Amino acid sequence: MHLVIIGGVAAGTKAAARARRVNRKLAITLFQDETEVSYTACGQPYYLSRVVPTREALVIRKASDFKADHIDIKLRHRVMELDTRRCTVQVHNLENNAMQTVPYDRLIIATGARAIVPAIPGINLDGVVTLRSMAELDRFRSALDRLLPQCAVIVGSGYIGLEVAESLVNLGIKTTLLSRNQQVFSRLDPEMSQHLHEYLLTKNVQVLINEKLAEIKGHWGKVTSITTAKGAKLATDLVVLAIGAKPNAELADQAGIQLGMSGAIAVNNRMETNIEGVFAAGDCVECYHRLTQKPVWNPLGDIANLQGRIAGENAAGGNATFPGVYGTAIFKTFDLNIGLTGLTETAARQAGFDPISTVITARDKARYYPGAKELTLKLVAEVQSGRMLGAQAIGPGAVDKMVDIMATALLGNLSCRDLENADLAYAPPFSPVLSPIIIAASNLSKLLTG
Amino acid sequence: MHLVIIGGVAAGTKAAARARRVNRKLAITLFQDETEVSYTACGQPYYLSRVVPTREALVIRKASDFKADHIDIKLRHRVMELDTRRCTVQVHNLENNAMQTVPYDRLIIATGARAIVPAIPGINLDGVVTLRSMAELDRFRSALDRLLPQCAVIVGSGYIGLEVAESLVNLGIKTTLLSRNQQVFSRLDPEMSQHLHEYLLTKNVQVLINEKLAEIKGHWGKVTSITTAKGAKLATDLVVLAIGAKPNAELADQAGIQLGMSGAIAVNNRMETNIEGVFAAGDCVECYHRLTQKPVWNPLGDIANLQGRIAGENAAGGNATFPGVYGTAIFKTFDLNIGLTGLTETAARQAGFDPISTVITARDKARYYPGAKELTLKLVAEVQSGRMLGAQAIGPGAVDKMVDIMATALLGNLSCRDLENADLAYAPPFSPVLSPIIIAASNLSKLLTG
Repeated sequence: MHLVIIGGVAAGTKAAARARRVNRKLAITLFQDETEVSYTACGQPYYLSRVVPTREALVIRKASDFKADHIDIKLRHRVMELDTRRCTVQVHNLENNAMQTVPYDRLIIATGARAIVPAIPGINLDGVVTLRSMAELDRFRSALDRLLPQCAVIVGSGYIGLEVAESLVNLGIKTTLLSRNQQVFSRLDPEMSQHLHEYLLTKNVQVLINEKLAEIKGHWGKVTSITTAKGAKLATDLVVLAIGAKPNAELADQAGIQLGMSGAIAVNNRMETNIEGVFAAGDCVECYHRLTQKPVWNPLGDIANLQGRIAGENAAGGNATFPGVYGTAIFKTFDLNIGLTGLTETAARQAGFDPISTVITARDKARYYPGAKELTLKLVAEVQSGRMLGAQAIGPGAVDKMVDIMATALLGNLSCRDLENADLAYAPPFSPVLSPIIIAASNLSKLLTG
Repeated sequence: MHLVIIGGVAAGTKAAARARRVNRKLAITLFQDETEVSYTACGQPYYLSRVVPTREALVIRKASDFKADHIDIKLRHRVMELDTRRCTVQVHNLENNAMQTVPYDRLIIATGARAIVPAIPGINLDGVVTLRSMAELDRFRSALDRLLPQCAVIVGSGYIGLEVAESLVNLGIKTTLLSRNQQVFSRLDPEMSQHLHEYLLTKNVQVLINEKLAEIKGHWGKVTSITTAKGAKLATDLVVLAIGAKPNAELADQAGIQLGMSGAIAVNNRMETNIEGVFAAGDCVECYHRLTQKPVWNPLGDIANLQGRIAGENAAGGNATFPGVYGTAIFKTFDLNIGLTGLTETAARQAGFDPISTVITARDKARYYPGAKELTLKLVAEVQSGRMLGAQAIGPGAVDKMVDIMATALLGNLSCRDLENADLAYAPPFSPVLSPIIIAASNLSKLLTG
């Protein structure tokens, strides 16, 4: 019995480890087209800013670490084709250019996603960088070291763009952020995003909203300026493309594996594709949103780990299910923490719910306790039942705690009436006497019509 | 319509404020035998250690702050007797010694609790202190300032004893802690408590277990030593009694109001006593434990606030219910955070559950992110259903977040299978890629028999 895994970052390596634990006899081969496996893309911005001092810290496990588990990792091997009838993969050894056909009994596709690179003039100039793979990280770091940029333009205001903004400003680089939308970090409700926008200005990040990158200009092969869709010209030494990502689903698609609406691979709750014995996990798949009950593409490292575990277990003969996601996300930029779970008010309305909401600003410890920090919390619930639909939090305070309480509340189908008397942990160094969650839930309860 | 409230710390003042919000016409009188209302007892250890620099910071609202809400606060007025048939209270004005009979239509008893002071020789010596009311705090602070103690014995290893241990050591006082039990902080399971014990030793706190205070000796009216029940003699300048507290329920008892098994006032989920129109809230009442489904005495500031709100609402004509508690608690001693929610393994077994448990040690951020701190987490679940029963966490890491996630999980009746795929917030500065909660829940899932 041979399990083949395509891709070895988060989901792929997790799947391999889990499959081995479930089935000691399985032969496991993992093909990875990069030179490393099991690295963290999420930590990359902190290596750029030197908060994480060494590149090695970003590699969680080396390929050789998998030998003890008899997991055969083939680095620099790219799977070019997949035949689900013959149950084979066509593999290109990037070192010696050899092609090889490898049979499998079970297959896990964990091909991840890639940064979107627009086809515009100047895109190949030195100083135009992206962030996702270790090769992209190395190119980014090299650009910083070689070009010593004084100015940078970050294109995109998602979490990668905002994390990199911190990294670049900390390196002394004058940074401008372009957002194609009306606001930065478009997943937030507008009034929450506004806090983020104003905070960025205090950090001397120039923010241009409703702006797209149109053209990059250079001199002697190096970036010198960009032009926006509205015609603004900005001199810059560095252009960071953080527009978004798309799933690496072409290999699966060409093999007749069904994709979902988002373009990512469609899987059931066992992480199985429409082809029996072929599983997929991580950034290349769509998952089920537990509130909208619709598929959503939600490419995040923790979810990739959870899904990899499920795919590995099932491919090895187990029977585990992945229940779906609530769209929980968190990041920081400078000293501002931004997190959300479930649906924003906008998203709740789009999904057909009738939402109510409340926004409060509170401290994360007792007022008199030193080091108490502020946070703004928005809770969203259904107007009739009071069932919680989502939370957004922003501020220097304990945003992560607020989001995790609410992610757990969503998992428990709790209503604002449940939360307004929650027995949360209080002592002055940890919380105000009534948690911001309790205060906000109590506000919502007063708005209920049910 | 006249609402009388007896007691004005947490529950009493919260009840008054809520009653006013619900009913603008109600006459509200609050009798408080102390010179201040609405102070935080929980913050007192930090005033002793000068982490909180001013005494005023501990007073949340002054009596005069309630005037705008037309809440008549009578300071230094002690209610001596309560007649529930005539609906009157007998009040002693401690300033001028006058007695007064005051009629009420609705009554809220919020008389709180008091520190236990054992009747042993030497208990009245200068340098023997307790902590709860502001008067006790002043006496404690005065003892520190006047006696300049070099050594202290703290009797009791509950959270107050452990918080005060930090305060005293930070003031340069050589501190010994006496625990009457086999372990410090007896609510924890033994292996969790062991971490606390060993940590205290690293902070040069001497810990004597299985020891009770037998006698206090003095010279010229001041403490000089103590003798333990086993006969050990310890020279000391200061004795802190932190043995525990008991509810101030005598007034209610004498009026024929029913007490519960714990000796605290029995109330229903509307915070109403057995006498119609008489409510009680805060440290003087018993509450319902939502896991054991039995009454429990759980005197904590946050619960007092929640209950005060319910009692105030109902006394003013509303209809709110308090669903009960999970026994959530948290405190810190030095840089060690200790928290729990629900049942320990020991308590679960005593309550008739068949528990399974797991203990893990994890970091609270990504391994490579600076400032990641450790915590040890114990989760307890039912062996058949996997339903979560409780959590304990200890360490320098984000214990408060772990406890709050689990308190919310208990509120949602979640099982370990729910939690092992929880969509919690991950980014390197906030969490490892899989939360300790997910890792521990996954361990538990493997132990299930159901």
